[in-house]
Amino acid sequence: MTYRAPVGDIAATMKSVVGLEQAIAGGLYGDLSMDVVDAVLEEAGKFASDRIAPLNKVGDKHGTPFKDGVVTMPPGWKEVYTDWAAAGWNGLMAEADYGGQALPCLINAACLEMWNAASGAFGLGPLLTQGAIEAISAHAAPELRAKYLPKMVSGEWTGTMNLTEPSAGSDLAGMRTKAERAGDGTYRITGSKIYITYGEHDLTDNIIHLVLARLPDAPAGTKGISLFIVPKFLVGDDGSIGGRNDVRCNSIEHKLGVHGSPTCTMVYGDAGGAIGWLVGEENRGLAAMFTMMNNARLAVALQGVSIAERATQQAFAYASDRRQGRAPGYTGEGMGPIILHPDVKRMLMTMRTYTSAARAICYMTASEIDRAHLGRTEAEKKAGNLRASLLTPIAKAFSTDIGNEVASLGVQVHGGMGFVEETGAAQHMRDARIYAIYEGTNGIQAIDLVTRKLPLEGGEVAKAEITRMRAVAAEVAKVNAPGFGRTSERLVAAIDSLERATDHLLAALKSNPADALAGATPYGRLFGLALGGTALAEKGLAVLGDDPHQHVAAARFFAENLVPAASGLELAVTGGGDGINEINVQLAG
Amino acid sequence: MTYRAPVGDIAATMKSVVGLEQAIAGGLYGDLSMDVVDAVLEEAGKFASDRIAPLNKVGDKHGTPFKDGVVTMPPGWKEVYTDWAAAGWNGLMAEADYGGQALPCLINAACLEMWNAASGAFGLGPLLTQGAIEAISAHAAPELRAKYLPKMVSGEWTGTMNLTEPSAGSDLAGMRTKAERAGDGTYRITGSKIYITYGEHDLTDNIIHLVLARLPDAPAGTKGISLFIVPKFLVGDDGSIGGRNDVRCNSIEHKLGVHGSPTCTMVYGDAGGAIGWLVGEENRGLAAMFTMMNNARLAVALQGVSIAERATQQAFAYASDRRQGRAPGYTGEGMGPIILHPDVKRMLMTMRTYTSAARAICYMTASEIDRAHLGRTEAEKKAGNLRASLLTPIAKAFSTDIGNEVASLGVQVHGGMGFVEETGAAQHMRDARIYAIYEGTNGIQAIDLVTRKLPLEGGEVAKAEITRMRAVAAEVAKVNAPGFGRTSERLVAAIDSLERATDHLLAALKSNPADALAGATPYGRLFGLALGGTALAEKGLAVLGDDPHQHVAAARFFAENLVPAASGLELAVTGGGDGINEINVQLAG
Repeated sequence: MTYRAPVGDIAATMKSVVGLEQAIAGGLYGDLSMDVVDAVLEEAGKFASDRIAPLNKVGDKHGTPFKDGVVTMPPGWKEVYTDWAAAGWNGLMAEADYGGQALPCLINAACLEMWNAASGAFGLGPLLTQGAIEAISAHAAPELRAKYLPKMVSGEWTGTMNLTEPSAGSDLAGMRTKAERAGDGTYRITGSKIYITYGEHDLTDNIIHLVLARLPDAPAGTKGISLFIVPKFLVGDDGSIGGRNDVRCNSIEHKLGVHGSPTCTMVYGDAGGAIGWLVGEENRGLAAMFTMMNNARLAVALQGVSIAERATQQAFAYASDRRQGRAPGYTGEGMGPIILHPDVKRMLMTMRTYTSAARAICYMTASEIDRAHLGRTEAEKKAGNLRASLLTPIAKAFSTDIGNEVASLGVQVHGGMGFVEETGAAQHMRDARIYAIYEGTNGIQAIDLVTRKLPLEGGEVAKAEITRMRAVAAEVAKVNAPGFGRTSERLVAAIDSLERATDHLLAALKSNPADALAGATPYGRLFGLALGGTALAEKGLAVLGDDPHQHVAAARFFAENLVPAASGLELAVTGGGDGINEINVQLAG
Repeated sequence: MTYRAPVGDIAATMKSVVGLEQAIAGGLYGDLSMDVVDAVLEEAGKFASDRIAPLNKVGDKHGTPFKDGVVTMPPGWKEVYTDWAAAGWNGLMAEADYGGQALPCLINAACLEMWNAASGAFGLGPLLTQGAIEAISAHAAPELRAKYLPKMVSGEWTGTMNLTEPSAGSDLAGMRTKAERAGDGTYRITGSKIYITYGEHDLTDNIIHLVLARLPDAPAGTKGISLFIVPKFLVGDDGSIGGRNDVRCNSIEHKLGVHGSPTCTMVYGDAGGAIGWLVGEENRGLAAMFTMMNNARLAVALQGVSIAERATQQAFAYASDRRQGRAPGYTGEGMGPIILHPDVKRMLMTMRTYTSAARAICYMTASEIDRAHLGRTEAEKKAGNLRASLLTPIAKAFSTDIGNEVASLGVQVHGGMGFVEETGAAQHMRDARIYAIYEGTNGIQAIDLVTRKLPLEGGEVAKAEITRMRAVAAEVAKVNAPGFGRTSERLVAAIDSLERATDHLLAALKSNPADALAGATPYGRLFGLALGGTALAEKGLAVLGDDPHQHVAAARFFAENLVPAASGLELAVTGGGDGINEINVQLAG
C-alpha cells in the first residue's frame, strides 16, 4: 500500500496546536508565510509519497550487502537520493551561507516525518548528515566549515556520528578510541566504533565521519572526550577529493529492521592512524555533541511518529478491504469490512490518535526549538529553550513507544496476514523497534526528564505546562459540545494525576533519588498522555463549528479510552518506587 | 543464552495458586502423587533445556526450505523430535488405550510451556498433533481411532488442522473446500487451505490432515461444514503406509517469526480429489472443532507464557552481565551491572511478574479443564467446565498480549544489542507476535469472553471469580506483612473496577451490544490484571514465613506498578464505547 503524506493533519497540528499562524503574524519567523509553508509541505509530501515510499520494501528485502569493504545500497536508492538532494531537501534547515534554505525547525520536522514515513531506512542517512552539519556549524573552525559544509548541505556528501564502542553505550565514560596530536594541527585516530549508521555506502562520493576519541593526556571520564572530523576521502583545500583516509568499514550488523540502512562497525587507524581534524576544543567533544542532542532526539521522536503514521495508513486500508463477519448495524450483503467491527475500530482509533498525539508533541517541541533560536527577546529565547528542554525527552520516549505499539497493532489488525512478511505490516513493526533504543534509550529519556528537566527553574517549567493544559481542558468544558463526550472530565483527571506525580517526584529528587528514578518511565508516559490528550482537544476546539468532525471524535476517543491510563501511571510513580528499590532483583531472575 | 526450565516457579504455581496438593489429596487425580508430578516436571525440564533449547536459533536461521513439494526441517530437528517422541512426551495427555500416559491437563500444560519456551517453532508441531488426537478421540469412529491414534500418540505421525482459506479466516461461514461422497463411505476433498502449520515436513513418515470442507448438499454457513481425516499417505488396515494421497504442499509462508515451523498452503484434489474419511457426523464438523477449541486456546496461551519466560531469562542474564553507569547504591569498582538501575529493575520485574501472572492464569484454567473431565460429581464437572470456559479467553488474550510486551521489553533491556539478531532477543519478539493472532485473535477472545462467557449462569460464574479474588485480597490485608506494601489496597481497587465493569457489560449486553463489543478488549485485560495480581498474592501468602521472599516482592511489584492500570481500563469499558460506536471511522483513515 502506498504512503500518502498526511499534509492535512500536519497543517492542522501546526495551526491548532502549535499556533504557527500567530507566530508568523507576530514576526517570529521573519518573512515566512503560511503560503510558503503549505507549498513546502505539499512538495515534500509528493516527493515522499511518489519517490521514497516505493523504496521501503526494496530496502527491507535487499538490505545493504557488504563485501570487500564496500556496502551496496538497495536498487533504485542512489537515483532517488540524488534527485532528493538536488531538489534541495537535504539543506532545508541549514544556514543560507552554506547553501541551505534556513527554514525553521518546525517545517523541517514535518519534512523529516514524511521522509521517514516513506522509508525510515532512507530517512536515516540524511538525519545523520543533518546532525553532523549542526555539530560542524556550531563548533568547527571557519576553514573546516568552509571545506565541509557546502557539500554536506547539498547532500553530495553524507555525515556520520561515531559515539558507541562495545563497552561504551549509554555510558560514554568508558570510551577507548584514541586521538594523538600529529604536530601539524591534525590528529591521528585509532580505535573501533560500532552501530555507525550509514558508516559506509555508495550513495555519495565521500562520507564525513564525526568521531569521539580521547587524547593521551585527557582527563578520565566524559570530560576527556574530543570530537574530530575524519573524512573517508581526504579533501583538498579547493574541495577536491584526494586519497583514502585510514578508516574502513569492517562489517555490518544483521538487524531486526531498517535493513536499507547500513549499520557499520568502523575501524580507524589500521595503517597507523586516520587523519582527523579537531572540532571545537580539546576535551570538549561531549559538549559539542550535546548541542545537537535535542535536535537529534526530536528527529528520532519524529521517526516514531512516521512509522506510526505509515502503519496506521496501512491498517486502515486493509481493514476497509478485508471482509469478515457482519458488524452490528452492517446492512450490506455478505460479509462486511472489518473496519466496522467495534474492536477493530478501537484498534484503528488507538493507532490514529496515538499517532496524532505524538505528532502534536513533536511539533510543539520543534516550535519551541525555533523560539529558542529565533526569539525576539532573550526572555523569549530562554522560555523557548526551557520548554524545548522539557518536551524533548517526552517527545522522544512517547513517540517511539507508541511507534512500537501502533506498528504492533497494525500487525494485529491484519490478523494472520500481518505475520506474513508479504503484507509489509511486519516490516513496520521490525523497523519501529530501534527508535525506542537509539539516540538515548527511552529509559534514559525518562531519567533525563525527571532528573534534569523537571527541576528546571525549580519545577516551574513543568508547572507552566500543566497550567497550559488546564486552560485547554477548561475551554473544552466551557464549549460543552456533545461531540467531546467526557473529554474535559478525563483530561482534568489526567492533569490532576500529572500534577500529583510531579510534586511527588520533585520531593523525591531531594529526599530519595532512587524512588524518582524508579518512577521515571511511568511519569514520562503520564506526561505524554496528558499532553497528547490536550493537543488533540485543541485540534478539536479549532473545528468545533463543523461538528461532527473527525478531530473532535479523535480527541474524544483518546480522552475516553487512552487518557484514563493516567491514574494507574500516577500510582506507579507515587507508590511503585519503594517496592522496586527494596527488591533483590537477582533473586527474581 | 540457554533456557533453564523454571521448574520451581511452575511447582509453586501449581501448589499455591491451583491447589494441586489439595486436589490430589481429595482424590481428583486418582493415584497421581506430587512425587510423580515433580519427577515429570524435572524430566521434561531437562529435555526442554538440554535438547530442544539449542534448536531454537538454528530453526530461526535455517527456516524450512521448500523445494519440489518437499519441506526440509532445520538441521538436528529430526533427531531431537524422534528422541522426544520415543521418550513418550507426545502422548502425555492421550488415553492409555492408544499408548498415552493419560496425565492431567495441568501437567501437560506445564510441559507444553517448557517445550515451547525451549523452542516455540519446535513445540508447535506436537501441539497441532495433540489437537488432532483430541478431535479424532472424541469424534471419529472406532476403526478410524484404531487406525490413526496409536501412531499419532506415539509421535510417529503428526497431525494438522485445516481450517483457514483465503477468504475464510475468523469467519468460517465463507469456507469453500468441497467434499463429495465417493459411494464407498469415503469422500473426495478438493480445495485449498492456507496457514497450515506443519502441513508438510520431513520429521515423520506420515502426516494426518484434519480438513474442514462442505458437502454439495450442505446447508449454507457454519452449519454445513464437515470434518475429514485426509492422510498424506494412505494407511492400510494393518497400519502400513500405502500410496500417496492427492494432497500436496504448494508453498510456504515467509513469516516474521517461528521460522522453524513450516506454514503451508495445502492443495487438495489436484488429481481428482484427496481421499477423506468423515470424522463424526456430516455437517457437524464445527462442533467437532469446538470440543478441542478450549484446549487449543489454552495451548496457545501457554505459548505466550513460554516466550515471555524465555525472553525474561535472557534479559535477566544480559542485565546481570552488561555494565553501564553506576546505579544508586552501587559501591563496586568501575561501571556496575545494569540490573541494578531502578529503571532496568522496573523492566525486568515487569517481565518476570507478567510472566508469572500469565502462568498462574493458564494453570488455573488447565486445572479447571481437569475438574471438568475428572470431577467426582456432575456438579463438580459442571463447575470446572464453567470456570474453564470463563478463564480460557482471558488466559489466551492476556498471556499472548503480555508475551508480546515482555519480548519487546526484552529487546529494550538489551539496548542496541537487542536490535541485532545475533543476541536472540529480537527472535523472541518476532516469534511471540503470532500468538496473539492465531487460534482466534485476541479481539475474538475478548468478544468470546464478553458475549459468551460473561453471561454464563446469568453472570454468576464471573461474579464467583470476583468473590474468590476478594477473599485473597482480604487475606493479604489480614496478614498485614510489610513486604506486601500496598498489595491489598491495589488489589481491592482493581477488583472493584472489575466488578463495576462486569455490571456495566452485563447490562450493555441487553441494551447496547455494540457498547459491550467496544469494551471487550480492555475488559479482558482488566480481568487478567486482577486475576494475575490475585494469583501472585496467593504465591506470596504461601511463603510469608520466609520474608523477604521473592514471591512476596513479586506480588507487591505487580500490585503496585501494573495492577493500577485497572482503573483506566474500567473507564475505557464503561465510558469508551459510545464514542467508538459514534465515530465514522473511515474519516479518520
